[in-house]
Amino acid sequence: MTTSDQEPDQALVTDVFARGCTSRAAFEDVTSKWSSLALLALGEGRYRFNALRRRVDGVSEKMLSQTLQSLERDGMVVREVVTTIPPRVEYTLTPLGERVAERLRTLADLLEGTVAEVEAARAAYAETDRARS
Amino acid sequence: MTTSDQEPDQALVTDVFARGCTSRAAFEDVTSKWSSLALLALGEGRYRFNALRRRVDGVSEKMLSQTLQSLERDGMVVREVVTTIPPRVEYTLTPLGERVAERLRTLADLLEGTVAEVEAARAAYAETDRARS
Repeated sequence: MTTSDQEPDQALVTDVFARGCTSRAAFEDVTSKWSSLALLALGEGRYRFNALRRRVDGVSEKMLSQTLQSLERDGMVVREVVTTIPPRVEYTLTPLGERVAERLRTLADLLEGTVAEVEAARAAYAETDRARS
Repeated sequence: MTTSDQEPDQALVTDVFARGCTSRAAFEDVTSKWSSLALLALGEGRYRFNALRRRVDGVSEKMLSQTLQSLERDGMVVREVVTTIPPRVEYTLTPLGERVAERLRTLADLLEGTVAEVEAARAAYAETDRARS
């Protein structure tokens, strides 16, 4: 799928800052608490529900299920029934989901690599807080 | 600030999937509903509180204030008192905040450019939902 058939002026008006713009809704969907981790996980490969639930440490069954439905609705994730006996359900990314997951991965890489900076900032902030009170 | 002075094995253990890892907390902080939009806005330049609130369309005063405090604590945002008469408070990004904002911007660019795809996926999903029921 490409976006080449969209109205030529549409690129001018889509804006993640605008309430009511689909791009804002999609941005909020993919960055929401469990969605972003689910997308990162599926960026590693296909997952069955329970394996995905273990990977996205801390998510409840209900929340993961809602998260995957929202991502499926936005065209990021495909729910696939594999016709084995017994049949099993697997989740994969669409091409758009892959592109989103790649961008989330660069963000995750950055934050995994800057833990020392964040911890130093938190310590300094706590210090200032103590000094204020 | 660099992370070159962190323990050599730290890069091996930081993991956004691990509950309790600072990188996961930071990842959740910067991708939370209002934080990501505030970071995108501050990526455009410095903002006073009220102007930032107008830019981040829909945020309440209380939520924006909490969001900025959380980002300040993580070392992403600096709250700066400019000594004019009357003094004014401005918010800017730290170098780490800039790097995070750049990555969020590539994600926002992608979603602003793929609105047609997301809308087509939503229409197809609604159609399937109707067919099921």
